[in-house]
Amino acid sequence: MAEISSSTFAQLVEGRLIGAPDLSLSGVESLEEAGPAQISFLANKRYAGRVAPSRAGLILIHESHDLSGLEDKTLVLVKDPSAAFSKAVDLFAPAAPEFTPGIAPSAVLAADAKVATDAHIGANAVIGRGVVVGAGSVIGAGVVIGDFARVGSSCLIHPNVVIRERCTVGDRVIIHSCTVVGSDGFGFIPSAKGHTKIPQVGIVAIEDDVEIGANCALDRARFGRTVIGQGTKIDNLVQIAHNVRIGRHCFIVSQVGIAGSSRIGDFVTLAGQVGVAGHLEIGDGSTVMAQSGISADLPPKSVVLGSPAMPRKDFVRREFQISKIEKLEQELAEIKRLLSERN
Amino acid sequence: MAEISSSTFAQLVEGRLIGAPDLSLSGVESLEEAGPAQISFLANKRYAGRVAPSRAGLILIHESHDLSGLEDKTLVLVKDPSAAFSKAVDLFAPAAPEFTPGIAPSAVLAADAKVATDAHIGANAVIGRGVVVGAGSVIGAGVVIGDFARVGSSCLIHPNVVIRERCTVGDRVIIHSCTVVGSDGFGFIPSAKGHTKIPQVGIVAIEDDVEIGANCALDRARFGRTVIGQGTKIDNLVQIAHNVRIGRHCFIVSQVGIAGSSRIGDFVTLAGQVGVAGHLEIGDGSTVMAQSGISADLPPKSVVLGSPAMPRKDFVRREFQISKIEKLEQELAEIKRLLSERN
Amino acid sequence: MAEISSSTFAQLVEGRLIGAPDLSLSGVESLEEAGPAQISFLANKRYAGRVAPSRAGLILIHESHDLSGLEDKTLVLVKDPSAAFSKAVDLFAPAAPEFTPGIAPSAVLAADAKVATDAHIGANAVIGRGVVVGAGSVIGAGVVIGDFARVGSSCLIHPNVVIRERCTVGDRVIIHSCTVVGSDGFGFIPSAKGHTKIPQVGIVAIEDDVEIGANCALDRARFGRTVIGQGTKIDNLVQIAHNVRIGRHCFIVSQVGIAGSSRIGDFVTLAGQVGVAGHLEIGDGSTVMAQSGISADLPPKSVVLGSPAMPRKDFVRREFQISKIEKLEQELAEIKRLLSERN
Repeated sequence: MAEISSSTFAQLVEGRLIGAPDLSLSGVESLEEAGPAQISFLANKRYAGRVAPSRAGLILIHESHDLSGLEDKTLVLVKDPSAAFSKAVDLFAPAAPEFTPGIAPSAVLAADAKVATDAHIGANAVIGRGVVVGAGSVIGAGVVIGDFARVGSSCLIHPNVVIRERCTVGDRVIIHSCTVVGSDGFGFIPSAKGHTKIPQVGIVAIEDDVEIGANCALDRARFGRTVIGQGTKIDNLVQIAHNVRIGRHCFIVSQVGIAGSSRIGDFVTLAGQVGVAGHLEIGDGSTVMAQSGISADLPPKSVVLGSPAMPRKDFVRREFQISKIEKLEQELAEIKRLLSERN
Repeated sequence: MAEISSSTFAQLVEGRLIGAPDLSLSGVESLEEAGPAQISFLANKRYAGRVAPSRAGLILIHESHDLSGLEDKTLVLVKDPSAAFSKAVDLFAPAAPEFTPGIAPSAVLAADAKVATDAHIGANAVIGRGVVVGAGSVIGAGVVIGDFARVGSSCLIHPNVVIRERCTVGDRVIIHSCTVVGSDGFGFIPSAKGHTKIPQVGIVAIEDDVEIGANCALDRARFGRTVIGQGTKIDNLVQIAHNVRIGRHCFIVSQVGIAGSSRIGDFVTLAGQVGVAGHLEIGDGSTVMAQSGISADLPPKSVVLGSPAMPRKDFVRREFQISKIEKLEQELAEIKRLLSERN
Repeated sequence: MAEISSSTFAQLVEGRLIGAPDLSLSGVESLEEAGPAQISFLANKRYAGRVAPSRAGLILIHESHDLSGLEDKTLVLVKDPSAAFSKAVDLFAPAAPEFTPGIAPSAVLAADAKVATDAHIGANAVIGRGVVVGAGSVIGAGVVIGDFARVGSSCLIHPNVVIRERCTVGDRVIIHSCTVVGSDGFGFIPSAKGHTKIPQVGIVAIEDDVEIGANCALDRARFGRTVIGQGTKIDNLVQIAHNVRIGRHCFIVSQVGIAGSSRIGDFVTLAGQVGVAGHLEIGDGSTVMAQSGISADLPPKSVVLGSPAMPRKDFVRREFQISKIEKLEQELAEIKRLLSERN
């Protein structure tokens, strides 16, 4: 949409308009960046001080917000400013890139690859023998799919992704650029004469509704499958080692590394830069806070941090104990002084 | 192989069969995933409780294992269940992808590139001026090799790898997808007006029998060479800065970062997410545990952890000391009480 | 240059030659690696012990250096050995790869892409609809540029980079291989039934004179822009989340991760493997030491370390306090002994 009036927008988000009803609005921005033709919002009270100085044409704000000092603003009061702002974002969002069905002339397909007629195969993509690409899927430019791999329907595989041989990708999966699915697991028989590679003959199986960020590495299993469970979302630069099994609806944040054969339950959150050692189990619903190192199993609904990780309350207590050392030292000196005086 | 009988398989791994001799077996799986036509194994006693409930058709187990409660199972008793299982994995492993000798029609080669007649150059690969590719090497689809780089014989360069100009790769080297060999080192002359780039005119030299994971970044030297020593194995998402020298037969685990000009000895293990600062030396045979930060030289055979890292025994002792603070506090309170009573 | 005499070289770097004037020099190397035809240097006093045993033909050394024991060496005394050595490196540097103006026949360009006549579009690059590439820019082999993205003039985009739709790249920007500019931000509405993707319709805006390493991931904004400020240098494997704003002339070292909407000031250094949580502000001129975790705003000129990070002096003090626990324990035991003796 090119433009919307402030009153029409207020109706759209079912909010109460305070201020000018006939402003012409044509975009969205943050409170600090917005100009007179843009819609902005306050969702986090932390940023409340940014409302008054904002140049935004219209600001979405919670219906309980104290409006004193904002008399010169055009506001729309709503129950959920963040959700209402999302509607505004959608309203002005540029058209998503179009991927017309069909195979780019420069793509290289094996003769026996089976590509749905309404799928899109981008320029210079390379599709191996026996590969299957399902209905409505988009294979980006420069993507390489190895022999006998399968990509389901309605997937979006961004440019320069590599999916190695025999790996499987479910339906409605999104994989961002330069991610590698099915690289060899890191397995060797060590020896003083040099290390012997252990063949990695399994696959990676990505279930439905998974999203995987850019520049991730997902290693194929030694045998069997490395599994990314249904609905799990993985951020950028994440390492998934061989034979890892991740459950359903997890959040694996950027730069996490999970070592071989570990199992992550359902609805687990691993925050940024977390490391998980090999052969561990992390129970359903657990949260591991940023930069933590997991070296033992975690029961369900654990909330841990630290390297090595411990329950959050233990971590806080440990820091509090350390902060007391100086006082203990002073008290001890005082006692020594007292005792020596008494001698 | 499609199928093997339990008795034939027991002979193959030189084990003693207990149970049905004529089972038809057609694959391998973990104890929890295996079905009646699959072979599984118990190598780690930690998982002993998974044997009885397993639906596996045949289970490889150590010859000294207590078999009580496993009377209904078909077992093969062996000296090394893990090694025997590897034979089973090999038996049923799908054929590795075939790379026929020759140059894909869509590959783009400079006129003076020298490619061995039995090498394979994949679809849409780009090979620069003066590049040499040795006998039997496979250059995957979408790989880009810069001018005057050299790749030895029997190498496997996976799809979408980039090898920049003049870098050298030895024989029998494996490089996984989207790894970059020879990106510029991170070198600048800082200034209040902006930082000036220091030209990075050296190369990366990868010796024989090295394996490098997916999405790694190996920076070319400021001058001279960044070196990855013979037989060293590097996992995914590893950062190797300019002028680093890694010795022979090291294990560099996922997400490790090594800063500029540091030297890693032979047979060193850097576990996951370790960071090594610049201009350091890590002695032969050292082990750095996961997530550690190295900010000083390490003598040979060091075993360290922590950030900053310390010898493992010091780390354990330090944690033990911290755990005592609460008790010290209580004892001190008791003494203060005693002393005040006496007054 | 193929060769230079020691006396000519001394003149070139405005140094004082001690030793043979007519040595023929043809390259540069480190003190340990250099041979009789190579120039080396001592910049860091830490390596002073490497001068005497070096086989280098000529060594650049600080004019105040104690020369005793170096009587058999050919030396050039200078005010800044590192800068003088840089001149030597430049002298012998191999020619940089040449990129002839024009579009490779195998590149795939949308009909309405606007490429400057003196730009270079590499083999198998893919350039989307409405893309603009400025004067003198080099787009490497296998690069994919999405619809309506803009690349300025004199840029160097290395092979297999991906720049997604609508992102903007300023002038004189360098982006190393396999980096992804404009992947979707990691934004979902969580729910017990599965997480709903929040459209990420903003862009990444890279200002002039930025350099970005290999295998980085820079996420496009939820709306508006993720910004990399003018002159900022980013190392390899760095994660920049959606709506992050990085100021001017920062150094972001390898494997750093910056979470969503955080703002980094000007002239900030984030050392290797640092993590910055979301929605934070890091003041101008701050330095965050390696592996630190930032979970609160930092005022300008902060110098912090640790996870969670604290001012450097607090970190040092905290470690010192921990080291005292053992002594406190011993003193307490002594007091208890004394008190019990008195009873």
